[in-house]
Amino acid sequence: MKPLHSLALKVEGGKLWVLDQTRLPDVESWLEGDDPGVMVGHIQRLSVRGAPLIGVAAALCFARFAESGAAKSALEDAFQKLRRARPTAVNLMWAMDRMKAVLDEGGSVPDLTRVAEAIFDEDVALCEAMAAQGAALFSPGEAVLTHCNAGALATAGIGTAVGVIRRAFELGKVSHVFVDETRPLLQGARLTAWEMVRAGIPHTLITDSMAAILMRDGSIQRVLVGADRVAANGDFANKVGTYGVAVQAAHHGVPFHPVAPWSTVDLACANGAAIPIEERAAAEVRGFGALRWAPESSPVFNPSFDVTPAALVTSLVLDRAVLSQAQLNAGMLSRL
Amino acid sequence: MKPLHSLALKVEGGKLWVLDQTRLPDVESWLEGDDPGVMVGHIQRLSVRGAPLIGVAAALCFARFAESGAAKSALEDAFQKLRRARPTAVNLMWAMDRMKAVLDEGGSVPDLTRVAEAIFDEDVALCEAMAAQGAALFSPGEAVLTHCNAGALATAGIGTAVGVIRRAFELGKVSHVFVDETRPLLQGARLTAWEMVRAGIPHTLITDSMAAILMRDGSIQRVLVGADRVAANGDFANKVGTYGVAVQAAHHGVPFHPVAPWSTVDLACANGAAIPIEERAAAEVRGFGALRWAPESSPVFNPSFDVTPAALVTSLVLDRAVLSQAQLNAGMLSRL
Repeated sequence: MKPLHSLALKVEGGKLWVLDQTRLPDVESWLEGDDPGVMVGHIQRLSVRGAPLIGVAAALCFARFAESGAAKSALEDAFQKLRRARPTAVNLMWAMDRMKAVLDEGGSVPDLTRVAEAIFDEDVALCEAMAAQGAALFSPGEAVLTHCNAGALATAGIGTAVGVIRRAFELGKVSHVFVDETRPLLQGARLTAWEMVRAGIPHTLITDSMAAILMRDGSIQRVLVGADRVAANGDFANKVGTYGVAVQAAHHGVPFHPVAPWSTVDLACANGAAIPIEERAAAEVRGFGALRWAPESSPVFNPSFDVTPAALVTSLVLDRAVLSQAQLNAGMLSRL
Repeated sequence: MKPLHSLALKVEGGKLWVLDQTRLPDVESWLEGDDPGVMVGHIQRLSVRGAPLIGVAAALCFARFAESGAAKSALEDAFQKLRRARPTAVNLMWAMDRMKAVLDEGGSVPDLTRVAEAIFDEDVALCEAMAAQGAALFSPGEAVLTHCNAGALATAGIGTAVGVIRRAFELGKVSHVFVDETRPLLQGARLTAWEMVRAGIPHTLITDSMAAILMRDGSIQRVLVGADRVAANGDFANKVGTYGVAVQAAHHGVPFHPVAPWSTVDLACANGAAIPIEERAAAEVRGFGALRWAPESSPVFNPSFDVTPAALVTSLVLDRAVLSQAQLNAGMLSRL
């Protein structure tokens, strides 16, 4: 396998490594990712996260496993485990199905490696394309809000929503970024804020509950978020809290844009109700990491994602087009 | 001073004690509260919090200081320090101004004690009156959302918003309570959840970002919150995040009610823009307690409160009346 480098994933000396995102921003620690069982653990513990990156990491892991001489039955088993590692992000299923197709068509190990490398390279190119499409939306000097982390840590390239923000910042079209901390796992506070510091982009960290007052005060001109799955009608799933941000943006007349590569669109899902939503452990809400602050006996609701209807989307930024709400309503997503 | 007992404040053996709310729910530790300088520290560190309780605690502390034989000049100084301990809650100023009036009219130490005890007793009675007014709003079996802690920990009695919820639960009118965790200081997760466990009320703890999806799914029939200051036109300040919840409630057609005693109404404030909003330390948003999870160099916005306009209030529950939005708009608050 050729050397590959992104912010949170690399192939070095023929070995696959992933950055342990649970330890950011203070510790930059790389984990081995060659073994499918180990990679499933990395994905489920969110050491590897972000819909596009999960797909890229799983495909590369699968190819590395083939390179190690795994038997056909072991590869079949690895395919099943990796494809099911998380249920909401469709990029994972899309990437693994591409790998499986190569296997089913009798492809060789070098064929599997080539396709996995292509998935990585394509993801980099998709990020560039989204950045170009999305940056065109901005007027000079806008302040933007983003939720969770849809940045370079979530993709093989510069990111989806944060990639657009970064490009717009370089063009003088973004002057400030407000970062939702994104409870319960704090991907905004830990990951997006870290990316902003690294990129030298002026930013302010807020709790999720503060976005509405900044919108009312006119401090936020636009909201950009990632997506884990986009349904055929434009409804989309993203990190829990996205729906609430969309409601607040609509109330205040602030334009709201999900940003996603084509691989996140799932035309087999007619609408948001068909997207499966992963529920995670109660302990994530009762505290953070090893720290617990709520009563152990208090029941918890902890969906990892929520669904935002197309009715709250100003426009959807894809790598190949920007579709307005009217275009989504007219079914243009399935005709791209 | 006579013995007094509430969930978070007591006079025992003639000494004033406050429960250290920063250590809940796991540790129940009582702090001495007789010294005004020490009490100001308790209030600023939020060991004592909740608009009504702050007023009661400050008044009792002032009376205890007088009982200890403090000179007039020391009392004047203590009055200034206590009255300014926190800027947003008006109950504190209201309670301290009542104590100062006794002093200015040449009242004796027993007079000061009597008025401070009366402020405690009145707060208990105000809670009962709010509970009766508010519980009448409910239909049987409703599920309710609350934000922050407006419970027995925040008052000398059964609470404001949570007092209403508790009474409605006893009457079979509330079947379930959703508790917003309330970042950054997690008063919902630490304090309201603890009160729910103690009272045996079925509840679910959620992050602040999850309320909107529960409203959309029809899981929440009503929102009740406390208030730190109510302006003459019905705008009110409360814990940061309240405004966002109000926007979401309006979007989903869910009735939204602030609950407050008369002492929280400040007719000298014409509207919400006149309410001063306290900003707190950046470290509160970068982590929790001793734990930091965001980059140390990321700037932070951390207002302790936000203002919700009367336009988003279905009705305001007071101890003496329930005022609809139309009645608030008609200026009825200043004619009660």
